[in-house]
Amino acid sequence: MLAVTSHGLKDMRVEDVPRPGLEQSTDAIVRVTTAALCGSDMHIYHGKVPAVPDGWVVGHEFCGVVEDVGDAVTGIKPGDRVVAAMYTACGHCAACVAGDHRRCKSFAMFGFGEAWGGLQGGQAEYVRVPLADMTLRAIPEGLSDESTIFTGDILATAFTALRQAAVREGDFIAIVGAGPVGQLIAMCAPLFGVARAFIIDIVPERLAEGAALGAVPIDSRTESPRKIIKEQTGGEMCDAVFEAVGNAPALQTAFSLPRPNGVVALVGMPLGEDFPLSAGDAWLRNTKIVPVLGAPFAHRDELLRLIAAGKIDAAGIITDRIPLAGATEAYRAFDDKEVQKVVFEVSK
Amino acid sequence: MLAVTSHGLKDMRVEDVPRPGLEQSTDAIVRVTTAALCGSDMHIYHGKVPAVPDGWVVGHEFCGVVEDVGDAVTGIKPGDRVVAAMYTACGHCAACVAGDHRRCKSFAMFGFGEAWGGLQGGQAEYVRVPLADMTLRAIPEGLSDESTIFTGDILATAFTALRQAAVREGDFIAIVGAGPVGQLIAMCAPLFGVARAFIIDIVPERLAEGAALGAVPIDSRTESPRKIIKEQTGGEMCDAVFEAVGNAPALQTAFSLPRPNGVVALVGMPLGEDFPLSAGDAWLRNTKIVPVLGAPFAHRDELLRLIAAGKIDAAGIITDRIPLAGATEAYRAFDDKEVQKVVFEVSK
Amino acid sequence: MLAVTSHGLKDMRVEDVPRPGLEQSTDAIVRVTTAALCGSDMHIYHGKVPAVPDGWVVGHEFCGVVEDVGDAVTGIKPGDRVVAAMYTACGHCAACVAGDHRRCKSFAMFGFGEAWGGLQGGQAEYVRVPLADMTLRAIPEGLSDESTIFTGDILATAFTALRQAAVREGDFIAIVGAGPVGQLIAMCAPLFGVARAFIIDIVPERLAEGAALGAVPIDSRTESPRKIIKEQTGGEMCDAVFEAVGNAPALQTAFSLPRPNGVVALVGMPLGEDFPLSAGDAWLRNTKIVPVLGAPFAHRDELLRLIAAGKIDAAGIITDRIPLAGATEAYRAFDDKEVQKVVFEVSK
Amino acid sequence: MLAVTSHGLKDMRVEDVPRPGLEQSTDAIVRVTTAALCGSDMHIYHGKVPAVPDGWVVGHEFCGVVEDVGDAVTGIKPGDRVVAAMYTACGHCAACVAGDHRRCKSFAMFGFGEAWGGLQGGQAEYVRVPLADMTLRAIPEGLSDESTIFTGDILATAFTALRQAAVREGDFIAIVGAGPVGQLIAMCAPLFGVARAFIIDIVPERLAEGAALGAVPIDSRTESPRKIIKEQTGGEMCDAVFEAVGNAPALQTAFSLPRPNGVVALVGMPLGEDFPLSAGDAWLRNTKIVPVLGAPFAHRDELLRLIAAGKIDAAGIITDRIPLAGATEAYRAFDDKEVQKVVFEVSK
Repeated sequence: MLAVTSHGLKDMRVEDVPRPGLEQSTDAIVRVTTAALCGSDMHIYHGKVPAVPDGWVVGHEFCGVVEDVGDAVTGIKPGDRVVAAMYTACGHCAACVAGDHRRCKSFAMFGFGEAWGGLQGGQAEYVRVPLADMTLRAIPEGLSDESTIFTGDILATAFTALRQAAVREGDFIAIVGAGPVGQLIAMCAPLFGVARAFIIDIVPERLAEGAALGAVPIDSRTESPRKIIKEQTGGEMCDAVFEAVGNAPALQTAFSLPRPNGVVALVGMPLGEDFPLSAGDAWLRNTKIVPVLGAPFAHRDELLRLIAAGKIDAAGIITDRIPLAGATEAYRAFDDKEVQKVVFEVSK
Repeated sequence: MLAVTSHGLKDMRVEDVPRPGLEQSTDAIVRVTTAALCGSDMHIYHGKVPAVPDGWVVGHEFCGVVEDVGDAVTGIKPGDRVVAAMYTACGHCAACVAGDHRRCKSFAMFGFGEAWGGLQGGQAEYVRVPLADMTLRAIPEGLSDESTIFTGDILATAFTALRQAAVREGDFIAIVGAGPVGQLIAMCAPLFGVARAFIIDIVPERLAEGAALGAVPIDSRTESPRKIIKEQTGGEMCDAVFEAVGNAPALQTAFSLPRPNGVVALVGMPLGEDFPLSAGDAWLRNTKIVPVLGAPFAHRDELLRLIAAGKIDAAGIITDRIPLAGATEAYRAFDDKEVQKVVFEVSK
Repeated sequence: MLAVTSHGLKDMRVEDVPRPGLEQSTDAIVRVTTAALCGSDMHIYHGKVPAVPDGWVVGHEFCGVVEDVGDAVTGIKPGDRVVAAMYTACGHCAACVAGDHRRCKSFAMFGFGEAWGGLQGGQAEYVRVPLADMTLRAIPEGLSDESTIFTGDILATAFTALRQAAVREGDFIAIVGAGPVGQLIAMCAPLFGVARAFIIDIVPERLAEGAALGAVPIDSRTESPRKIIKEQTGGEMCDAVFEAVGNAPALQTAFSLPRPNGVVALVGMPLGEDFPLSAGDAWLRNTKIVPVLGAPFAHRDELLRLIAAGKIDAAGIITDRIPLAGATEAYRAFDDKEVQKVVFEVSK
Repeated sequence: MLAVTSHGLKDMRVEDVPRPGLEQSTDAIVRVTTAALCGSDMHIYHGKVPAVPDGWVVGHEFCGVVEDVGDAVTGIKPGDRVVAAMYTACGHCAACVAGDHRRCKSFAMFGFGEAWGGLQGGQAEYVRVPLADMTLRAIPEGLSDESTIFTGDILATAFTALRQAAVREGDFIAIVGAGPVGQLIAMCAPLFGVARAFIIDIVPERLAEGAALGAVPIDSRTESPRKIIKEQTGGEMCDAVFEAVGNAPALQTAFSLPRPNGVVALVGMPLGEDFPLSAGDAWLRNTKIVPVLGAPFAHRDELLRLIAAGKIDAAGIITDRIPLAGATEAYRAFDDKEVQKVVFEVSK
């Protein structure tokens, strides 16, 4: 079968690899119909993720049709259309019951190599899905792949960020970075009742998209986010700030925006970056710092409800639809910021 | 000065009464510009509120201009446009700090007679406001009386109800009664991220207004709320139900709609009504019951933010604007359901 | 094998029945070492639980040793000592992930007949346990059956009650009924930081046990709980009240004790009982009503931590240890209140 | 009157200064009976707090007797025994109502100079207390100064830290630093139901005091806190860690102890210190960072309840009782770690 495989720094290939089969009675085999290219895949592309063996199948956002299931799988059956969470977990250990699936001994992320659980990814024609009753959700009738695929990762991440930052009705928030995750935060923010969301970027098209979602756009090349937000909040500044880029300038901006006793949520993966303030200054400003790992298990069911009810249109962030065979070029174009959110149309 | 005064069963008069003056150093005198007729005023009209002396000035929703303040008042000054909370409290005792202002020893509701604290009301040309720094809020520049007046009672009540019922993003809710409070719950529900709100009434015009606010209207004369909601929620029923009428049929309907482990919030004042189910059935159905007293102190600041940001348009529920001199007739018309939400234009 | 079976009103027998075997790949067979007689078993004894077929094996609190597991079971293995939850659930559906296991389609309670899921009980030498990875927990090394058995039901119920009533540090609480559940609430209350717990009963021995756990005992035959609590709380009354009996006098007492805006938690199963106050009075007093169904899945892991750390000594409530063969007599004695908390020593 | 005044680096003097009088109608004058020397006073002693004018009266923990009150004060009266919060706030603005008193425009801390609100301190025979109804609490009958004085600062800080870190029943926690605040965290931890608290220091006497409060002592000069805690938590590590020193080694230790998705609360004032980990590592470890400023307004009422009920014995941390005249020497001895928690006996 065709699959996107990693071969080190900036070397993603579309190759023919063996089709996976069932290994455990709790597995499912999914024929992938749609997969997505996620910003975090670029950490593999840039060689920042350790222990990704040569030829590893990548990808952790995907929808498909169940092809086969193990004996113990009861929640889904062959023929069901499903969307996967970006990682798997058992669902019954103490960590899972506490909603902290990352600490589950069965935790494994699709397509992230040995250090993240040794699970082949979903940018492929077929994928083996462990603990299928937990990992997969049936796509509600009438909903498309594109409208639901992001419940497995970046939409769940945006929603998790808003929840973990404890955003409430009447809050002022700022989103630093108007990429896919930043836009989904802007899209979900009205569901949390924000009085005003500010979105900050340096790319006019992205800012226009943020504005279309109801956020106040701020171009940080020409404007001071802190100054504008101070004016527009009557001096109160932000209850919560979402850092959705992961680099030093974005961190710098993010930490300049919360009110005393406010929150900065780290949604971008700031690998290798320092904090832009000292512990002493964090204390004096009373700024809470909340790293966010998306929690699809905790939130996908309400997200699917909201999508079915027409309250979230996550497919709207998709900019490019490409056959799987074009993945090598898609990674390059994404890295060069020529495309924003790519889905691979794998099969029908 | 002119004021609306209670004289027993269905006898509200507009009379000339002495104009109030400062009594405590924490008082303010407010020249009322706009007052509202609230559904709970009808409990006085119907003689259900004990200890309302003859000639008592009624009314607990009002805006105005500060005329005079006592020495200890620091947060507002003469000339400020202000909106009042429906009751007062000290703000510094253990109960107030815990957000439970009703247990404050200084708790007193405007216009509700001796049993509720002995405070004359605001359907008058002037009103004495105790603990003015706590009771009043300056109306933000650019906002009208009509857009802010309900932060003192029914808008705060609607918001409180949604908070106390712990409504969260993705929930299904039902509102029993599409009167003013029911409509404000429907108006605020999107800020809590509901997937779907159902609104139930027997008056087509009210249902149409609920539908215009985004709720699914159900006419309980011709349709079974339970049946429709079961269908439209995939059998899950409601996470939270808001009883916003206060009579037996509405209670009956409300308790038929929650999911197991769901909530029924008592927002109407069901004075004299029994529960429509036994304690045993409440246990078996696992239905939480949450009586709601509006908490304007806790919520008016975020409500004013939301109004200023254009997220709530509470003035939209006003159906009739009447001079204070027309209050006697307005009470009659309200009682006969000829008008829905009346404001008195008292002065400029 | 020997098992306790129901044969209608006040007719529990110890009979020889077929030993169960594995049916699903997610099942386990447990050789029971210790089982407990729970107050809710008496609802079967009194014929109040519908659809309990003649000969049904009863019992839902038990520990044992894993005898056999299905192919899909990974969390436990033959030879492991385990404690069961009183019911089973899948752990991966939307309801389970939301912590609301009762709405799971796989929900079934041990030993409660067809209406509660059709699952044979654990007062038997062997029991089939569905969804074993979810339903069972390994008993931590060094802990006994008796110290852990109640994590599956009444200890979890006591803990759930305190959590759902949102008890916090500094609260005053009252416990109506000093039976096993009431005592476990008293035992757990210090972990929630209560300033004072009152325990109310009519049996001096029970009150003495409550007092030994740190609660203030009140004999409601000779004293007025409301009067005493008013005095000892400086007039504030209780933040939360736990009704742990389920009959009319207990309900009456419970609803007389909360402060305005306080909680009454229905922990006893008040089957067939009415509320002792009207909806109108509940509104005027602002009393929240919270029915409690124990949530062992949500809480057993922290309970096992607390037991291992010596913070809870649940075995202390056991009053009688009886061989399984004596079950018929034990039910009678329990019904006649001759014994309080009975465990059956089934095997070693 | 006598007062302790700051004169720059390591120069605290006991001087005769003018006795304060009422300035606002909301003021009270308190005759101080007991004051305490707080660790944060040492930041003034070491010259780290900006804008403390020469001769400023210091001290922010004190009890006393009300000598005089302004016209608008209603909650207390001359002759009342009172304990003060370490800072004042109005109680009625949006920030105060939200429980975020630090953002109140009337926020001012006793004895911290111009940058913290310009309020003279309480290590003096008399002190002017603004907004007295908010700032002061009557000491419940039967309680001593020493048992209640810390509700105004360090006991409230300890309690706030446990609340803001969201410690729950069954948690493992670690306290880095067994000084007065660390010990009060250990003292309050059982009220939050911790399964186990570890306390880490380098002074054997302090560790012994921590152990007497029920914590597991770890001497970080001879033992590895991470290793011991790993062993004693079955590899799970801590749900919450409290950094209660404020220097680099303590920060380093603190950040080595949380579990993934755990919390580090910054309770010491780490002025001038960097974070001991990068933003990227905080993301990978999923460590929340929560700076803590004590919230006496939010928590003193429940603390007074708990003290009255005998659940907290905060006076137990006092090591030295000294007349006010001995303050200069007391500051030196505290700085040299010869004494631990000093109270000044000012008057009877």
